[in-house]
Amino acid sequence: MLDSLDLSQQLPKGKYKEYLAPLKNELRDLQREVINARRPVIILFEGLEASGKGDSIRKVVEPLDPRGFNVELTPLELTPEDALRPPLRRFWLRIPAQGEIGIFDRSWYMPALAARVNGATKDPEWSERKEEIKQFERQLVEDGTILIKFWLHISKREQKRRFKKIEKSRYGGWRISKSDWKEHKRYSQYNTVADELLVETDTPYAPWTIVPANDRYYRRIHVLRTITETLKRCVRQVPGANDVIVSLPTSSERHPPETGSILDRVDLTKSLSREEYEAELKKGQNRLRELEYACYERRIPVIIVYMGWDAAGKGGNIKRLTQELDPRGYTVYPIAAPQGDEATHHYLWRFWKRLPKAGHFAIFDRSWYERVLVERIEGFCTEAEWKRAYYEINEFERHLAHFGTVITKFWLHIDKEEQWRRFEDRKNTPAKQHKINEEDYRNREKWDLYAVAVNEMIERTSTNYAPWTIVEGNCKLWARIKTLKTIIAALESRIG
Amino acid sequence: MLDSLDLSQQLPKGKYKEYLAPLKNELRDLQREVINARRPVIILFEGLEASGKGDSIRKVVEPLDPRGFNVELTPLELTPEDALRPPLRRFWLRIPAQGEIGIFDRSWYMPALAARVNGATKDPEWSERKEEIKQFERQLVEDGTILIKFWLHISKREQKRRFKKIEKSRYGGWRISKSDWKEHKRYSQYNTVADELLVETDTPYAPWTIVPANDRYYRRIHVLRTITETLKRCVRQVPGANDVIVSLPTSSERHPPETGSILDRVDLTKSLSREEYEAELKKGQNRLRELEYACYERRIPVIIVYMGWDAAGKGGNIKRLTQELDPRGYTVYPIAAPQGDEATHHYLWRFWKRLPKAGHFAIFDRSWYERVLVERIEGFCTEAEWKRAYYEINEFERHLAHFGTVITKFWLHIDKEEQWRRFEDRKNTPAKQHKINEEDYRNREKWDLYAVAVNEMIERTSTNYAPWTIVEGNCKLWARIKTLKTIIAALESRIG
Repeated sequence: MLDSLDLSQQLPKGKYKEYLAPLKNELRDLQREVINARRPVIILFEGLEASGKGDSIRKVVEPLDPRGFNVELTPLELTPEDALRPPLRRFWLRIPAQGEIGIFDRSWYMPALAARVNGATKDPEWSERKEEIKQFERQLVEDGTILIKFWLHISKREQKRRFKKIEKSRYGGWRISKSDWKEHKRYSQYNTVADELLVETDTPYAPWTIVPANDRYYRRIHVLRTITETLKRCVRQVPGANDVIVSLPTSSERHPPETGSILDRVDLTKSLSREEYEAELKKGQNRLRELEYACYERRIPVIIVYMGWDAAGKGGNIKRLTQELDPRGYTVYPIAAPQGDEATHHYLWRFWKRLPKAGHFAIFDRSWYERVLVERIEGFCTEAEWKRAYYEINEFERHLAHFGTVITKFWLHIDKEEQWRRFEDRKNTPAKQHKINEEDYRNREKWDLYAVAVNEMIERTSTNYAPWTIVEGNCKLWARIKTLKTIIAALESRIG
Repeated sequence: MLDSLDLSQQLPKGKYKEYLAPLKNELRDLQREVINARRPVIILFEGLEASGKGDSIRKVVEPLDPRGFNVELTPLELTPEDALRPPLRRFWLRIPAQGEIGIFDRSWYMPALAARVNGATKDPEWSERKEEIKQFERQLVEDGTILIKFWLHISKREQKRRFKKIEKSRYGGWRISKSDWKEHKRYSQYNTVADELLVETDTPYAPWTIVPANDRYYRRIHVLRTITETLKRCVRQVPGANDVIVSLPTSSERHPPETGSILDRVDLTKSLSREEYEAELKKGQNRLRELEYACYERRIPVIIVYMGWDAAGKGGNIKRLTQELDPRGYTVYPIAAPQGDEATHHYLWRFWKRLPKAGHFAIFDRSWYERVLVERIEGFCTEAEWKRAYYEINEFERHLAHFGTVITKFWLHIDKEEQWRRFEDRKNTPAKQHKINEEDYRNREKWDLYAVAVNEMIERTSTNYAPWTIVEGNCKLWARIKTLKTIIAALESRIG
């Protein structure tokens, strides 16, 4: 989840104050609603040192009535009193009462994370720890607690810059200790373990909001919007069906407006010349064939998922990918709307049926991700269902990865103009006319809705064990080589 | 959960056919409702060899229309095809469609259990396995599946008897193999691991029904009643608020009628003479004091929970327990209805506050179990809340046990007549009058409701790591010695 984050995000120039003022007013009013609704609220801030937890908390509490909130600091070291009790007790004692807001500067995550990175928490213990955290949060949320979790993410370079700046500041030198620098050196270790922890605890009842925090204005607006949107939904909703799950704002409601999404920032000018392409293609296809045999020998199952806009070039891409492969080693599954038996089973059923044997490739042209795209947008499933699906899909892929499957997922991206050109081309070329119909045009009208869903999908389901790769697709040649190289790299890194 | 089961249960004489006929009719009708409601149904039977899985399945399918169900056999060994895929795939492929009933003769549990007992599944893998099973079941139930899980439990002696009988039978000899006898020898190992697996997978969305299966008529009625009661609730309920959790029949609705509950079978004639008592008390109290120091030295936290009927003798029992203890080493917490801060937090909050330090004893006079007793009966919490509580409490105690806490829990049992005598005695003895009031009499009127709740509590929350002990309490002297000895045994087994 952390690797897919774009840390270069900034607020549009001069917009900060304009955004800030209404959010603060809203938050002040919402505090009263929280009190009237008698809901406990927990807002927790996690992130590496100097990622802006303290500053975020200051901004959150500014508009609040101080009689209704409490800021809880979590030292990494246990007090002697705490060391004699089960690990979660110290957090249980600090949960807010009904109508109160508990704000945690670090929480139950960072102590668990640090102990894991330092090697103090070994394997079976580590599973137990994560399980206990999930149980704790589920118990609170089922009891009515509104739980908002932030991970503030900064780059290693930004952390270093901040440490140096703080050290030089007049009164701040003491704030950066040797152990902070030690943490800094292990930045990537921390990140890897954090990512695992975040994915596994990104549950339907207590999802994470991961905030790109290199730019502090961006970070503040992101945090405040997430809080106001979440509180609004949770406090005002009619209690009832699955309210624990459906009450959370979508990604686009949480990000600061006008800052652009993951897709907006894709550089679609990337391209390859025909000669570069031919050379790379030949080389790549041959290498992939070697790897296909190596996977067979080592009994490694491989899953390759293609998603993308209509006319983004999935078909042609898959064709080049498989051109030189041994056909006994792979299967391509085109996925359309479920029919018959497949419509009367759980939506994941038909994909469980299509899992590759160990040693084989399964290539999906569309996939289980339709649950959070077309089924979401067209209303083929309920809101509760597609919100639950992020978690279900992460569990599904984790199960496969744990069995040893290499999973690569591609979003083939083009812009709206390029899609139009390709539609027109299809319409006007007799040999391509079968590839275009009314429905494609209807989908195109919902482009913006789909864009929101795609962004959220990539945010919520990019994991260490099954990462998304966004493929710049306006130039088909570039796109084909990029997918080929990505797969080769993933397989090489597994085979070592 | 298995250890607290009374395997001597039988049907009342001559009642079998009288019970069976209406259940079969009901089940036949319910199948039609399942089809109309388009709900997938999974009924799974687990249990050691010869526990009656096949016979149970025959009885279930007898009244069913064969076009609507399917019986799935699960071999313990993987086929070569299955071995090349993730472990749960073979079960995913076999899940029923909407309106179909899938009946599993063994399911995803027994292969996992066998691999664990045989040592093939090591520690981190084992956690992963259990987690995957829970995810699988949650995904199905959230999608609308009605999941009914049976564990058929027989004693080791009964298993042996059945093996021998089958071996002698004309066509059955081949049915008992060497590996079955090997399993028989490891009966207690299987039981221990099964208990762990059952507790952890006894979730609010997919609870277990554990069936005493030594008597086959009892077993059949128990199974059929559980299925009809569950289907009725699930199929007929209005979908909505938390339906995933609240739709299951209580323990008394599942057991065959008139067969008596756990409490009914307590032998209340047990007693001690004054001399025996004095001698045992002295010895026990001295030993407990030694153990108190030993726990302090080894930093072992100890929790002792007292629950029981009004006037069952909790106070006097605790007094004898603590009489010779070093008062610096223990605290007694009397638990009344929550007030103030404790009423505005999660119900477990006040118990997290009262956890013993490592090396100390915490003795609870009433406890978190009030959630499933008085709060349930008096309507102080919702049905969804108290049904969820079994799982929450098991998680809570597991967290404590995992930290190293020794947990013993007592239900002090007396009969209704004995309670009446004690109430009258209190009323008529000036020094005891403060111990009795109107409310005690009101509670007494709800005796039968409480009995149902107590039985269910003991069934659902007796775990290896925090077992219940039922204390025969009509003779107070007997009761005091039994609790004392139980605690001593638990501490000695920890200290070794």
